Amino acid sequence: MRRNRCPRRILFPVIVLTLLPGIAHAAGEDPSLPLLRYLVVILIFAKLAGHAAMRLGQPAVLGELIAGIVLGNLTLVGIHGLEGMRADPYVDILSRIGVIVLLFEVGLESTIRDILDVGISSLLVAIVGVAVPFGLGWLVGIWLLPDGSPFVHAFLGATLCATSVGITARVLQDIGKSRGKEARIILGAAVIDDILGLILLASVSGVIVAAASGEKMGVWPQLRIALQAFGFLAAALVLGTLLTPRIYTTGARLRGSGVLLGISLGFCFLLSWLSGLAGLAPIVGAFAAGLILEPVHFERYGARGIEELEEKLRPLTDFLAPVFFVLMGDKVDVRVLASPKALALAAALTVAAVAGKQACSLGVVDKGVNRWAVGFGMIPRGEVGLIFASIGAGLYFGGEPVIGPVTYSAVVLMVMITTLVTPPLLKRSLSSRKSGEPPAD
Amino acid sequence: MRRNRCPRRILFPVIVLTLLPGIAHAAGEDPSLPLLRYLVVILIFAKLAGHAAMRLGQPAVLGELIAGIVLGNLTLVGIHGLEGMRADPYVDILSRIGVIVLLFEVGLESTIRDILDVGISSLLVAIVGVAVPFGLGWLVGIWLLPDGSPFVHAFLGATLCATSVGITARVLQDIGKSRGKEARIILGAAVIDDILGLILLASVSGVIVAAASGEKMGVWPQLRIALQAFGFLAAALVLGTLLTPRIYTTGARLRGSGVLLGISLGFCFLLSWLSGLAGLAPIVGAFAAGLILEPVHFERYGARGIEELEEKLRPLTDFLAPVFFVLMGDKVDVRVLASPKALALAAALTVAAVAGKQACSLGVVDKGVNRWAVGFGMIPRGEVGLIFASIGAGLYFGGEPVIGPVTYSAVVLMVMITTLVTPPLLKRSLSSRKSGEPPAD
Repeated sequence: MRRNRCPRRILFPVIVLTLLPGIAHAAGEDPSLPLLRYLVVILIFAKLAGHAAMRLGQPAVLGELIAGIVLGNLTLVGIHGLEGMRADPYVDILSRIGVIVLLFEVGLESTIRDILDVGISSLLVAIVGVAVPFGLGWLVGIWLLPDGSPFVHAFLGATLCATSVGITARVLQDIGKSRGKEARIILGAAVIDDILGLILLASVSGVIVAAASGEKMGVWPQLRIALQAFGFLAAALVLGTLLTPRIYTTGARLRGSGVLLGISLGFCFLLSWLSGLAGLAPIVGAFAAGLILEPVHFERYGARGIEELEEKLRPLTDFLAPVFFVLMGDKVDVRVLASPKALALAAALTVAAVAGKQACSLGVVDKGVNRWAVGFGMIPRGEVGLIFASIGAGLYFGGEPVIGPVTYSAVVLMVMITTLVTPPLLKRSLSSRKSGEPPAD
Repeated sequence: MRRNRCPRRILFPVIVLTLLPGIAHAAGEDPSLPLLRYLVVILIFAKLAGHAAMRLGQPAVLGELIAGIVLGNLTLVGIHGLEGMRADPYVDILSRIGVIVLLFEVGLESTIRDILDVGISSLLVAIVGVAVPFGLGWLVGIWLLPDGSPFVHAFLGATLCATSVGITARVLQDIGKSRGKEARIILGAAVIDDILGLILLASVSGVIVAAASGEKMGVWPQLRIALQAFGFLAAALVLGTLLTPRIYTTGARLRGSGVLLGISLGFCFLLSWLSGLAGLAPIVGAFAAGLILEPVHFERYGARGIEELEEKLRPLTDFLAPVFFVLMGDKVDVRVLASPKALALAAALTVAAVAGKQACSLGVVDKGVNRWAVGFGMIPRGEVGLIFASIGAGLYFGGEPVIGPVTYSAVVLMVMITTLVTPPLLKRSLSSRKSGEPPAD
């Protein structure tokens, strides 16, 4: 419609507005109404805050998290009406689907072969980068949460393990260094990191679930649960690799809209469900599903197969992932965050997170690599740390959540700080010395 | 991975499979697990059945519906485990979001201007095509459901109103007639049809909700509810048209992934929510949101703006719309369908549906138009009829659902038959005489 037809445009709404008062009648009992309202708020706040974060050179996820914290604490300034969001089961389930699709997408970005091909440096960086933060996090727990059970301490360690490769990859891309040696080591290590982190998460939560159900602890049960987590991942990877070529060959013959997406989501949800049945977090299966799918599966869908799938998954994560991150922020109680205990815990966790990943630069065996840059690149915890924290908040031991409100808020703060410091550190360290050139040391 | 590395591939799973028995332990309490299982089943069955339907020259939605009927009646052949699906609140909420996004997408395909520009033939065809089936459906209700209240009869009439433009558009495209005179009249009429149908649905369900809450009935309350439905749509269209240019101008400045999709979904959910608040079905608002968004809003997003939005919505509907259609089929009880009463009702409804739309060809005032083809093109009820039936199943009057199991199954059967007969009738009538050429009459 053109803009010069104003007179009619002004008259019409005046007539209609007189009808409006009669409209707000017989409020429907449609169960989707509260959800729709929350989704409107989440989408608008997430996109505005994501924009603001990116304007400041930060990743959008940081903005979404802060948007959630603002929304969750509006009651403190007297604005009511959104308190129900954090306990709404439908928002919760959409956020869970969002995280599953997100981890599937992350898994798709690498193949099993990428991991097998990755250099010894990446492997060592990953192992050190998981072990040292895990140990440091555990020590922070013993020190600052002396009343907590060893499970709380171990879980705290687990939230420090996994690097959020998305943030680092984005920064490396922005400064044109995504093909350098440091980039390859960081990205390779981050993938192994994710896997080790998921196994660690699965082991720790498996032990907690077993202990909560009164199982006797000892070396063998704990070892069995770790083996179980590893076994599920390995079985999923092997069986998946064997079965998917057949699935996709059949799928390529199917007609209809969204067959590629439908089959792939079906596969992702299947592995997520199996992973849940095996007592692991569903995201472990989603990530494994993404790892299994390789470009070769999509050959019959044309040259662009896997990119096409990624393109079609993007709208799902663009819609659902912010629901997760805003909800994560929403659950942070600013009053708790302001307590000296939470601040001290957040500070100690942040130091452990940063120091733990600096240690992993010792794993670099290649020459001519900027070790500082590798260490800095591994700092951000981002979404994976948050996912771990939210899983911990849902695990109970002795009637208490493993990750209580204080610990949860401290973990969120740690994630925010590690995410905030990475881009400037990484940019500075890689700009001051050219990567790939012989180093001074 | 290459295919010639079989030895290792066989040894590895054997080792891993020995670990498997220990894995099915400590079944997680993750609330998403049942949903994930249902989604796997829905996605796989929907895509397979959609393919089968298309192979038979039928639209995919028909296959999804039949897949749902099969899944919902597996207990009859002794297969258990999926009975919980039809009552699962999470599957239900995903199907509701799916229908909202679907109606938004349908609305996007036309603009307000398209409707204003449509010829007098389309308008007359649409009005006759809503009024006659509504009246005939009402009469069928009086005849075959004599015990039902007038609300049941009116609702039955309402389910016969809206043409499912998607199926006809697809057939016209397939036979290369989508630019002919008949096509323009049918598609124009179908859009007006949708609007009239939604207003009728809103009025009928508004009257039922008011009556159920004990409000005194009479000419004035009924008229007020119809005006309210019309008023909401008009107000949404006018205010939306005034506000959206500003929203999208701001949105175009935002950085980040999925901003266009996020804003558009936010707008769609906002109008759906308002529509629900006004006592109408949320889909009315979603459709209005789609109508309001016009290519001009997307100019700042580049030339492909609106196509880009449609492309990004497609994965959402590819994922979520099948959840709705499979769930619709799932709710059909085959045993009820086999009762003489349900079959008689389904047969009478189908005759009313087909005859009612043939009457609308009388509305064609243009010369040189194949009136039979216009009538045939308006037959399919498809998704809109199903959506109306599902809304009726959720409305209660006097403790009984307005659309009970027998009526529901009969409506689903009517939708299936009208969908089945359209493609062959339309193809034959348009192939025997060339459209656009001077007719014989």
